[in-house]
Amino acid sequence: MFVYRHKVNYYETDRMGVTHHSNYIRFMEEARVAFLDSIGASYSMLESDGYISPVVEVNGRFKHTTTFDDVIEISVCIKSATTFKLKLGYEMHCNGKLVFEGYSLHCFLDKAGKPIPFDDLYPQFRAQIQA
Amino acid sequence: MFVYRHKVNYYETDRMGVTHHSNYIRFMEEARVAFLDSIGASYSMLESDGYISPVVEVNGRFKHTTTFDDVIEISVCIKSATTFKLKLGYEMHCNGKLVFEGYSLHCFLDKAGKPIPFDDLYPQFRAQIQA
Amino acid sequence: MFVYRHKVNYYETDRMGVTHHSNYIRFMEEARVAFLDSIGASYSMLESDGYISPVVEVNGRFKHTTTFDDVIEISVCIKSATTFKLKLGYEMHCNGKLVFEGYSLHCFLDKAGKPIPFDDLYPQFRAQIQA
Amino acid sequence: MFVYRHKVNYYETDRMGVTHHSNYIRFMEEARVAFLDSIGASYSMLESDGYISPVVEVNGRFKHTTTFDDVIEISVCIKSATTFKLKLGYEMHCNGKLVFEGYSLHCFLDKAGKPIPFDDLYPQFRAQIQA
Repeated sequence: MFVYRHKVNYYETDRMGVTHHSNYIRFMEEARVAFLDSIGASYSMLESDGYISPVVEVNGRFKHTTTFDDVIEISVCIKSATTFKLKLGYEMHCNGKLVFEGYSLHCFLDKAGKPIPFDDLYPQFRAQIQA
Repeated sequence: MFVYRHKVNYYETDRMGVTHHSNYIRFMEEARVAFLDSIGASYSMLESDGYISPVVEVNGRFKHTTTFDDVIEISVCIKSATTFKLKLGYEMHCNGKLVFEGYSLHCFLDKAGKPIPFDDLYPQFRAQIQA
Repeated sequence: MFVYRHKVNYYETDRMGVTHHSNYIRFMEEARVAFLDSIGASYSMLESDGYISPVVEVNGRFKHTTTFDDVIEISVCIKSATTFKLKLGYEMHCNGKLVFEGYSLHCFLDKAGKPIPFDDLYPQFRAQIQA
Repeated sequence: MFVYRHKVNYYETDRMGVTHHSNYIRFMEEARVAFLDSIGASYSMLESDGYISPVVEVNGRFKHTTTFDDVIEISVCIKSATTFKLKLGYEMHCNGKLVFEGYSLHCFLDKAGKPIPFDDLYPQFRAQIQA
């Protein structure tokens, strides 16, 4: 499984002393971009080919806190895929504990806003879908 | 229903030309804080009384995009409450369209990390629960 | 003098318990946008007319801390203007104290990246320059 | 000279298509923390020893834009030091170009808010000051 690492920055903490919950949504994006790179489906390339991929839904469940200087290990996998929607799953671990679980749902659009079947763009995704 | 307004800042947009999806999680927090203020349950007071209220889960569904200078109207309501968990619901409208729907789940802890029944802290919440 | 108000959000604090210093640069932008609106020079309009206005320099001096729920009063003025560069000054007060002083330097470019004399775009700015 | 690398995230861009200027202040912090680690003066340790180090001033000059997926190389050095204040300098390069120059000024305080001579905390800093 693909793993991405994020070291928590000081500016990502809040006055509760922990990583602010909204930042995990950003860590999901960082990990997703790195994951897509790793399977030859870079988001930069997608954009320069004239497509965009809006986020349709995000979900996050917070299990334990993290804070400044912690290294979070983020694993990403493809959960499921319909013709037009792709669901990615995320698990984040820190110091041996599960700190976060989440998912994101994505579609793909051309410049006119027309939905594109994701298999047309990224046939290699199918092989990555985990049961 | 309580409504909070957020005008989208330039720094909240991304290079797709729209408000970055992670910021809606922050707008939820802004609206939640204002909502709690409005029912006499300010988060500042909660903290100064020695309690914290971590976010247990967040969910967001993105319906339409918004961008710089748009005014987003965010309505907040209490969806449900068990002894230890409170679920808030959010709807965001902009220019007459529903742009976002989401919820957040919260618990309340004392300084030792012990869960506190939310009725003990905020008896007035019960009356606000919407069917 | 033009005054803009920003209420500090929870997500803008850090684990030192105060507003993270980087956010004041964002508050400067919020106040600048509101100031430009107030003198009929909205940044949205500038962009839709095909111009951009990159930030050339920012400077901030931190005098006192602020935190969650504080209301910061931000005054903005035009400090000076050469043919191609505009310098804005900012003072932020909170609870009667000066908490921040800063400035930003801006130029104006057309779509080809060519510098535009700011008087061509905003003749009304001249009248606003403060000694 | 110490060099830290930051890969620009999608959420760090704005609708001008480039990295939002406020984020460079955050990249300065990331690089500073890594620099301090590299000379045995970790900020985590400073905090756990009961000290804080507020930012007194920041300055940034923007030379060229960067965007999503760019790798920014950030060099950090100690510019000067008086008894109570430390000045760090930053240069950021991307694709062979200088994109940003800046500095930050810091003091050190104990828990009571009393300024601490930085030599008392970090005698090793003196040796690092660059002419």
